[in-house]
Amino acid sequence: MLQFKRFQALWEIIVVLTTLVVGGVLPYRLGIGLELDGPWQTRSLLVTLVFGLDFVIHLWDRLRQRGDRPTAVVSWATLRLFADLVAALPYSLLLGAVGPSLELLRLVKFLRVQAILSRWKQVSSFNPSLLRLTSFAFWIAVFSHWMACGWIGLGGVEQRGAPMSQHIEGLYWCITTLTTVGYGDVTPKTDVQRIYTMFAMIVGVGSYGFIIGNVASLLSNIDVARSRFLDKMEKIDAYLRYKSIPRNLRDRVQNYYQYLWDSRLAHDDFEVAGDLIDSLRTEIMMHISRPLVERVPFFKHASDEFMRSIVPHLQPKVFLPGDHIFKQGDVGDAMYFLTRGQVEVVLEESGRQLAVLAESAYFGEIAVLKEVPRTASVRAIDHCQVYELKRDSVNQLMQAHPDFAQHVLEALDSYEDT
Amino acid sequence: MLQFKRFQALWEIIVVLTTLVVGGVLPYRLGIGLELDGPWQTRSLLVTLVFGLDFVIHLWDRLRQRGDRPTAVVSWATLRLFADLVAALPYSLLLGAVGPSLELLRLVKFLRVQAILSRWKQVSSFNPSLLRLTSFAFWIAVFSHWMACGWIGLGGVEQRGAPMSQHIEGLYWCITTLTTVGYGDVTPKTDVQRIYTMFAMIVGVGSYGFIIGNVASLLSNIDVARSRFLDKMEKIDAYLRYKSIPRNLRDRVQNYYQYLWDSRLAHDDFEVAGDLIDSLRTEIMMHISRPLVERVPFFKHASDEFMRSIVPHLQPKVFLPGDHIFKQGDVGDAMYFLTRGQVEVVLEESGRQLAVLAESAYFGEIAVLKEVPRTASVRAIDHCQVYELKRDSVNQLMQAHPDFAQHVLEALDSYEDT
Amino acid sequence: MLQFKRFQALWEIIVVLTTLVVGGVLPYRLGIGLELDGPWQTRSLLVTLVFGLDFVIHLWDRLRQRGDRPTAVVSWATLRLFADLVAALPYSLLLGAVGPSLELLRLVKFLRVQAILSRWKQVSSFNPSLLRLTSFAFWIAVFSHWMACGWIGLGGVEQRGAPMSQHIEGLYWCITTLTTVGYGDVTPKTDVQRIYTMFAMIVGVGSYGFIIGNVASLLSNIDVARSRFLDKMEKIDAYLRYKSIPRNLRDRVQNYYQYLWDSRLAHDDFEVAGDLIDSLRTEIMMHISRPLVERVPFFKHASDEFMRSIVPHLQPKVFLPGDHIFKQGDVGDAMYFLTRGQVEVVLEESGRQLAVLAESAYFGEIAVLKEVPRTASVRAIDHCQVYELKRDSVNQLMQAHPDFAQHVLEALDSYEDT
Amino acid sequence: MLQFKRFQALWEIIVVLTTLVVGGVLPYRLGIGLELDGPWQTRSLLVTLVFGLDFVIHLWDRLRQRGDRPTAVVSWATLRLFADLVAALPYSLLLGAVGPSLELLRLVKFLRVQAILSRWKQVSSFNPSLLRLTSFAFWIAVFSHWMACGWIGLGGVEQRGAPMSQHIEGLYWCITTLTTVGYGDVTPKTDVQRIYTMFAMIVGVGSYGFIIGNVASLLSNIDVARSRFLDKMEKIDAYLRYKSIPRNLRDRVQNYYQYLWDSRLAHDDFEVAGDLIDSLRTEIMMHISRPLVERVPFFKHASDEFMRSIVPHLQPKVFLPGDHIFKQGDVGDAMYFLTRGQVEVVLEESGRQLAVLAESAYFGEIAVLKEVPRTASVRAIDHCQVYELKRDSVNQLMQAHPDFAQHVLEALDSYEDT
Repeated sequence: MLQFKRFQALWEIIVVLTTLVVGGVLPYRLGIGLELDGPWQTRSLLVTLVFGLDFVIHLWDRLRQRGDRPTAVVSWATLRLFADLVAALPYSLLLGAVGPSLELLRLVKFLRVQAILSRWKQVSSFNPSLLRLTSFAFWIAVFSHWMACGWIGLGGVEQRGAPMSQHIEGLYWCITTLTTVGYGDVTPKTDVQRIYTMFAMIVGVGSYGFIIGNVASLLSNIDVARSRFLDKMEKIDAYLRYKSIPRNLRDRVQNYYQYLWDSRLAHDDFEVAGDLIDSLRTEIMMHISRPLVERVPFFKHASDEFMRSIVPHLQPKVFLPGDHIFKQGDVGDAMYFLTRGQVEVVLEESGRQLAVLAESAYFGEIAVLKEVPRTASVRAIDHCQVYELKRDSVNQLMQAHPDFAQHVLEALDSYEDT
Repeated sequence: MLQFKRFQALWEIIVVLTTLVVGGVLPYRLGIGLELDGPWQTRSLLVTLVFGLDFVIHLWDRLRQRGDRPTAVVSWATLRLFADLVAALPYSLLLGAVGPSLELLRLVKFLRVQAILSRWKQVSSFNPSLLRLTSFAFWIAVFSHWMACGWIGLGGVEQRGAPMSQHIEGLYWCITTLTTVGYGDVTPKTDVQRIYTMFAMIVGVGSYGFIIGNVASLLSNIDVARSRFLDKMEKIDAYLRYKSIPRNLRDRVQNYYQYLWDSRLAHDDFEVAGDLIDSLRTEIMMHISRPLVERVPFFKHASDEFMRSIVPHLQPKVFLPGDHIFKQGDVGDAMYFLTRGQVEVVLEESGRQLAVLAESAYFGEIAVLKEVPRTASVRAIDHCQVYELKRDSVNQLMQAHPDFAQHVLEALDSYEDT
Repeated sequence: MLQFKRFQALWEIIVVLTTLVVGGVLPYRLGIGLELDGPWQTRSLLVTLVFGLDFVIHLWDRLRQRGDRPTAVVSWATLRLFADLVAALPYSLLLGAVGPSLELLRLVKFLRVQAILSRWKQVSSFNPSLLRLTSFAFWIAVFSHWMACGWIGLGGVEQRGAPMSQHIEGLYWCITTLTTVGYGDVTPKTDVQRIYTMFAMIVGVGSYGFIIGNVASLLSNIDVARSRFLDKMEKIDAYLRYKSIPRNLRDRVQNYYQYLWDSRLAHDDFEVAGDLIDSLRTEIMMHISRPLVERVPFFKHASDEFMRSIVPHLQPKVFLPGDHIFKQGDVGDAMYFLTRGQVEVVLEESGRQLAVLAESAYFGEIAVLKEVPRTASVRAIDHCQVYELKRDSVNQLMQAHPDFAQHVLEALDSYEDT
Repeated sequence: MLQFKRFQALWEIIVVLTTLVVGGVLPYRLGIGLELDGPWQTRSLLVTLVFGLDFVIHLWDRLRQRGDRPTAVVSWATLRLFADLVAALPYSLLLGAVGPSLELLRLVKFLRVQAILSRWKQVSSFNPSLLRLTSFAFWIAVFSHWMACGWIGLGGVEQRGAPMSQHIEGLYWCITTLTTVGYGDVTPKTDVQRIYTMFAMIVGVGSYGFIIGNVASLLSNIDVARSRFLDKMEKIDAYLRYKSIPRNLRDRVQNYYQYLWDSRLAHDDFEVAGDLIDSLRTEIMMHISRPLVERVPFFKHASDEFMRSIVPHLQPKVFLPGDHIFKQGDVGDAMYFLTRGQVEVVLEESGRQLAVLAESAYFGEIAVLKEVPRTASVRAIDHCQVYELKRDSVNQLMQAHPDFAQHVLEALDSYEDT
């Protein structure tokens, strides 16, 4: 199977390269008026060979898939197949006079290139916005080349110098027109040239409109997550300015979000994935939580199955230095796993610091399990990341996973003994 | 009624074509300075005939509808009616000197063309974005033609060659200006020409801005459903990249959505149709579910009424190969109808495969009806599509449809006997 | 008060017109190099008079409001006041040589024009998008005029013909550049002209970008409600196409929404007005429901207070011909007021038609009041609009409004007697 | 620490200025063909000194941070470091012939400038949209300068006059091309120039597309809060027009929102800040409510802790003149604190005015505390702003804050005595 996929990829590369060479050289020679002489004819036969083989492969592919597809798609697919056939004809064997121009029909092979590129785009896992930009640039380049060759063929280029120089002038005219710069130093003189130019201008304005409308959005889409995050922060900032919140508080809000972003905790667009099935969703959550959860010793050696059931219940939270995670006397409905930073356990009345807990500690389980008010306050010393586990989830997990229950209860006992 | 509609359509086509011919030929001849001689006058009478008849029809139509409409709309409609009258005047019978230029007043008939095209657009069920693009291109073409004729009439075209050649140069000037390319090889020389050019440039920049702002959105709207789906996938992908999910898992998520899309299950914008009445909503759901639901034998022969009541309760779900649909021992609150793919029924402890169910099977009804935990696990073998039916819905349906109840209970008995 | 407002409006018109004349004539004469001779000086004194008076008014206005405003705004407002003073200086009395050019300082009065236009825009209740377009066109015109005059002043216009002709050429250069058409028949020759042109091009590209980005959105905003409605329908249509719903059903959905739109029932953006206070909200609902509600005889003579309490409970609904409003045997939880169309009351078993109810009837109150199942089915004969009133609301209203309770119960009795 | 930050800022300014001077002068002299003679070489050594020192600082910084960063970022950071090294080489000491052109490599130092500007942008708390516009203009200016110098170096400028004049013509060509105006009075003559021009046009059209797509959105983003508010009002207005609400009611709705906006009560985007932690959220609310809450005497001397617990419960509300805040006989579930405006207490039956309450009063506590119907109506006399406190919140607060409970109950007693 893999063998086959590799061969397919190789063959596609060959076809694309051949088509690019044909699409590059043929219009160029015809435009400038160079003869398609002996060596060219040999090469043309080679092209016929490659395209012919590709046609057979394409045909075989189509016949194989025919059963599965609905009939409506057939006609368009048949057209593509027919285009492949047209591109594969041995034009060099035809009459000398008509042959060269007819050979331009080979350019319909670019339909196949388009299909191959589409498939590559879908298969690859590059940034989709960058891919779209690249493919867009590719097609612009191809069409500009053809347009320039046509312009030369119509006699639009004045000086009859070196072929390369002519081609540069043709391209220069083309780009000048498509970008709507329109210097006007190369202009149409005959009716046919004028019509050709009008066509170029209309196409230009269309694709130009398309670029204009897309460059900005493509560029901002290159990092969708970031641009959406910035957008959100801008809205919040606008709200705070409107409410005349002083700059220092505004800065703290901004720093908080910056911290969220940097530690990859910024809560964002996953809700759009509402129709994702549970198995994938759990796996994604596992990947997100693993590195942090594993800092907690108890979890490190937990079974994979236990992890899968606990992970959806863990709620990441961030606390700034000095924030209370909970206060003595509150009714406790959650326990916490500290994954980054330090917290201190203090008694409210006396202000006495009972303990400082570092990464990988958990706390708050007493109030949850015994349903008593918090016996002490817990306060963040620096930026802290914790996972919150609600009482309902704890109970549910203890029921389903006896070893977890045992572990927690043992820990509880050891507290009581103290 | 249908007879009448056909006649109306035919008449509208005649009116549109006549107007197009008049709008094409008249400015052309006047611009180039050709005389509107004998044959033209005959044709002009013909046009008067067609437009006159159309005016009468229009008038009759208006009088008929007058009762229903609020008065505010009247004035604008009256203006349109008056325009129709103006277009129908027998200009060729007027004084030779003034007649030709006055005949340009016939162009107000394009208001009627616009109204007819609007109606066609509304009635047709083509892709609305494509229709908008087409109608936009149509009006651009009409205005370009008029603008070119005006430019020729003002003496903007230098060479006084063949009329066709002059017209091409006029159009060329027009397109050069409207697309803001502005080569500058055809430029205004007199004050009047300069004012005309300024007008053309301002109109050009306006409609150009309109195109630029719309081409991109129109193109992306041609397949709204797909572009929204891609947008959503891009957001999810951005989220996964931000959370540093490894490529292989990201690919699986992408494949899953691709599968959803290909099997037309991607859950999308139907929630916007919140104000749709129930009768239409049910009918739409019937159409969506029918092809799949009918694979299940029980449903195949079910009454239409029963189908109507069950369809809103069916929730389509997709499972990937290896996913558990439910696990032995779980509390079951739904039964399933398998519409595509295969599932295996296994005992968790022993791993023994009890059965393989193929398309059209249903399962999970035991736990639902008898309120016992799942007696076995069910796992997807390949990509599976199932319809989920919640316990509440089952009960509700069994109450309302005794034959369904009987069928289900019989099946249950046969299980128990086994 | 009104007297004062009228005087204010009149005065503002005088100031705006004076400023426009000064802003039009002054740069024109200076650009072309015409002398600001005797009559001009008289007029200049007149302008000083008008602007001076306006400055006094402005100053008085500012002093009056000073108490209310926070101090931060003062500086910008003071600047505007200072600009008004500068514009009011008697320049014509200054030295002959420097005076004319200095008089250009009067153009800062356009700041005041801008302020007045802003106020007008806020006060008027025209379509805000149209107003924005208009004001945009106004400022483009003003700046183009100034730019053209500057260009003439710098010697950019070649032929030194009639002043009007020169001005047209200047404007022509300006428009050619701002629209980026750039024919290149009028080009800068000196360094100063080149710098001026660069400035014009950069300004042009900026404001052009602004137009391009806004024309489309402004145009689509001219009828926000409609464009949002179309947008929604396009999404629904895309969904239906994606799900391969047949054309005929798609057309029915479209017709339904078209009907909703035409009868002004399309449910739309009022939820954005979530922070509107109740008094305004109720008044709006009264206006929306009144014309329809009043068709029901009982409501026609109801007290305003009763109407105010019932209107928020009325839910407008539309039914298509043949749709069931409710079915015999259903549990009824709402009564209905028919405001448009006809319904028939039928017995399900026999299919016997008990009655045909026309506009202004109400029905469904039996099941609501006596908590029995529906005693008959009600089916729409043609397009029907009804107001639904839920049982909870009925009870609430009957409690609060004894006369309503009595009326309903009497009607109920008369049914029972039948 | 602060000392260090100040030094860092100073050093960054020195580096940026040096780079700007080098990036300005070097291409200019090379383009025009001026020799880089004696004094230049001295200056070049100075630049080497500054850049060398900066390289060392940069290197030291990198080494310090290496531990924390993941390895993937290293390569890109290393590249930047290498660029810094390249920019710091003592080019003036190299061979005379190659040296000058090689010195252009110093321009890679602009990567560092970009990094510094980014940091400044992040640190500063200016309007982010304005900052983006400014930085965009900065880079456009830099690139235009370089492009102009390149054009001069390629001989694109015809007249060989004063260096400054040449540079203006180069810039003029550059701006003409980038803005797509394209007069065509300065055009390429050789192949190299043509290729250079094509490159400029493509870059131009890209960055132009970016500007076009951004100017409008940037401008509208300068005041995000306001533009969103206007957007919302436009939607509401469109709804009201669609429903044919009379102009006078529409105006009242508009005035109401204008009042909300002006008194900074417009409820807006804070819900996007859903993931903000409670400590920041409470502090923001304190800032918003403080100025108004403090007008109520009781709150003025309340403890900070009490304020923190009451503020999240206070719901700001606005009433228009004549609106009822509540009506006699209603079931009361909230008490009110009047922060702006006047209300009157009236008996419904007799219409007798019992009292007029001014700012800082509170009312409605009787019905809340004793659970009796409202004993009188309260009606707004002018525009009133009140804070609503629901019964649940009152009870919760009285439980947690005994002094608040006592205060309220005392007030209650005094009422009863009356």
